[in-house]
Amino acid sequence: MRVLVTGGAGCIGSDLCEALLAEGHQVIAFDNLSSGKREHVEPLFGPGFEFVEGDLLDFDAVMRPLDGVEFVYHLAANPDVKYTPGDATDKDLSQNTFATYTLLEAMRRRGIQKLAFSSTSAVYGVVPRMPIPEDGFFPQPISLYGATKLGCESLIGAFQNLFGMQSWIFRFANIVGPKVRSKGRTVIGDFIHRLKEDPSRLLILGDGRQAKSYLLSRECVEGMLWAIRHANAPLNIFNLGCDDWLEVNEIARMVVEAMGLRNVRFEYTGGEGGWPGDVPRFRLDVSRINQLGWRASHSSAEAVAIAIRTTLERFSGSQPASELACRP
Amino acid sequence: MRVLVTGGAGCIGSDLCEALLAEGHQVIAFDNLSSGKREHVEPLFGPGFEFVEGDLLDFDAVMRPLDGVEFVYHLAANPDVKYTPGDATDKDLSQNTFATYTLLEAMRRRGIQKLAFSSTSAVYGVVPRMPIPEDGFFPQPISLYGATKLGCESLIGAFQNLFGMQSWIFRFANIVGPKVRSKGRTVIGDFIHRLKEDPSRLLILGDGRQAKSYLLSRECVEGMLWAIRHANAPLNIFNLGCDDWLEVNEIARMVVEAMGLRNVRFEYTGGEGGWPGDVPRFRLDVSRINQLGWRASHSSAEAVAIAIRTTLERFSGSQPASELACRP
Repeated sequence: MRVLVTGGAGCIGSDLCEALLAEGHQVIAFDNLSSGKREHVEPLFGPGFEFVEGDLLDFDAVMRPLDGVEFVYHLAANPDVKYTPGDATDKDLSQNTFATYTLLEAMRRRGIQKLAFSSTSAVYGVVPRMPIPEDGFFPQPISLYGATKLGCESLIGAFQNLFGMQSWIFRFANIVGPKVRSKGRTVIGDFIHRLKEDPSRLLILGDGRQAKSYLLSRECVEGMLWAIRHANAPLNIFNLGCDDWLEVNEIARMVVEAMGLRNVRFEYTGGEGGWPGDVPRFRLDVSRINQLGWRASHSSAEAVAIAIRTTLERFSGSQPASELACRP
Repeated sequence: MRVLVTGGAGCIGSDLCEALLAEGHQVIAFDNLSSGKREHVEPLFGPGFEFVEGDLLDFDAVMRPLDGVEFVYHLAANPDVKYTPGDATDKDLSQNTFATYTLLEAMRRRGIQKLAFSSTSAVYGVVPRMPIPEDGFFPQPISLYGATKLGCESLIGAFQNLFGMQSWIFRFANIVGPKVRSKGRTVIGDFIHRLKEDPSRLLILGDGRQAKSYLLSRECVEGMLWAIRHANAPLNIFNLGCDDWLEVNEIARMVVEAMGLRNVRFEYTGGEGGWPGDVPRFRLDVSRINQLGWRASHSSAEAVAIAIRTTLERFSGSQPASELACRP
C-alpha cells in the first residue's frame, strides 16, 4: 500500500516509517523539518521510501504527494507542549488544527479515506478521576497544545461522518526514546543536558511530584499498527500508553544514577505543574487497546530507564546518531 | 460597564444588546453583517449604544472597539449548521474557531478578562444517553459546525487557564424567535416559506422524527445573564435550554394549523437526520443552570408556538420588522 506519514522525520514519525517499510509498504515521509530531522530518515532511503520536504499549511504541497496514497498517518504537529510567556499564541492553532484541516481537505479532494492521527492525553486536561477512559467525561484542556489537538480530533470526526472517512485517533501518553530533542524540551533530555552543564545541581520544573505515563516510541508505533489492524469502526479512538505512571522526582533520580553522579542538589521552580498548561498528574485507562490484544511490554519506569540509557549512549557518541534509528 | 457583543446584529445578539442596554451598560455591537441585519439593531440606537461593522478575522478591526471594554459576549459565528455538498469546508473553521482565536488574542492584548460564549448542543454529537449533562462523556461532534464550536470552547478554556481569563460558555438548545432568517435555514421559517409557496404539501427533511429542545431567544438571553450573575468560577459551562424536546413532525402540524391550512401532504426526504451532520435527537440536562435559580418559562412546544405566531405576524406585515425587536 502507498502510505504517507506527516511528521515523518520526527522521532515517532521516523520510527513509524521504518515499521511501515518493514511491512512492505511504499512510504512517503512528509515533513517541513521545523522540528523533524533529516538524520532521522536518512537510514530509511531505499526503493520503498521517499522523503518530501513540505509544509502542511501549503495546500498544493500537500496535494501533490497524496496522489495514489491510500492511508495517511498524520503525526505532524507543533511538538512543544509548553507555552512560554512571549510565545505566539497561534502556533498550536496553525500547526495543529489548521494543518490538520488542510490535510483533511486535501484527502477529501483526493478521495483518500483512511487516516491515523496522533492525538494526546493533553486533550483531557484536568480530570475528575483516574485512570482516564477514552469517553468517560467532557475534556477540559488547559494548554493551547491540548486545546488545538482536541480541535483536530473533532474536525477529523466531522470529516469522517460527512465524507465517509475512516479514522483511528490515538491519545498518546508521554512518548520517550533516544531521539531526544536537543533543546531539552522533554524531561529526560532536559535533565541530561542540565546535569552535563552542572553536575552539582538539577533544576526540576514544578514540585517534582508530577506523575505521568511513559511509552517508548517504538512501542507507540507497534500499538498504533496493531489497533489499525484490529479495530474497524468508522471512528476508532484509543488511549495509547501503559497503565502506570512515574513521578518526575523518580526520573531525576534515575538520570542521576545512570550518569554515575552523586550529591546532586535538586532545586524546584515550585508549583503543581511544570509550566503553564501542564497537567500535573495523569494516568490513562488503556483497557480498550488491551482488549484488542495489545499491551505495552514496558512499565513507565522501564520505558524511561531504556530511554535514559539509549539517550546517554547517543550523547556519548559511541554510535553515530543516524545508526541508532530510534531503537531503544 | 462597557461591553462588546460580537454578532450583535444577529437574532440572539441584538436581543442581548437590548437586554444589556436595559441593564444600563454601554453596549458596542460588532458584526460583519454576513448574516446579522442592520434592522435588528436600528431600534437600539441611542446614547448607550454603538454599532461597529467589522469582521472578527480582521485583527485590527477587533482591537479598536475593544478599547475600554470590560466584558465581551461572543455570539458571532457561521449561523448555518447545515453542510450542503459543494459548500466550502473551511467556513466553520474560519468563522467559528479562527474568529474566536482572533477575539481571544485581542482580548489578551487589551487585558480584557471576561468572556461569555455561545456554544451549541451540536458539540455533543451523537451521544450514548439522554438527557445530556455538561460533562458526562467525551463529545463526538458530527458536523463541521459542532466540531469547530468545540474547538472554540477548548481554546477559550486554554486562554482562561493560561492568561487568567474568566469565561462563561453556553451550549444552546435550538433558539427560536420572530427574527427568522429569510432563506429558511431554521425549521419554522423553512416550513412557513414552503407552505406559502405551495399550501398543498410540505417537504420535511429527514423522517420527521427528529426531536430537539427549543428555547426562545429572549429566554436564552435571560438565562445567559442570570448565569453570569450567579456563577463565578474561572470557567463556567452551562447547557441552556428547557428540559423537554419536540418532534419535527409536531412542528409541521403546528405550523399548518397556525396558518389555517388543511389537507397538507407531508413529504419526507428520508433518513434519520435532516441533513449530513444533523444530530437527529437530543435533549439537554439543564439541571446545572436550574440549580442557579433560572429555568426556562416555556416548554419546547410553547416556545415553538410563540415563535410560529410571531413569525407569521411578521410575515403578514402587520408590524414593521424593526418594531418587533425580537420580542415573541
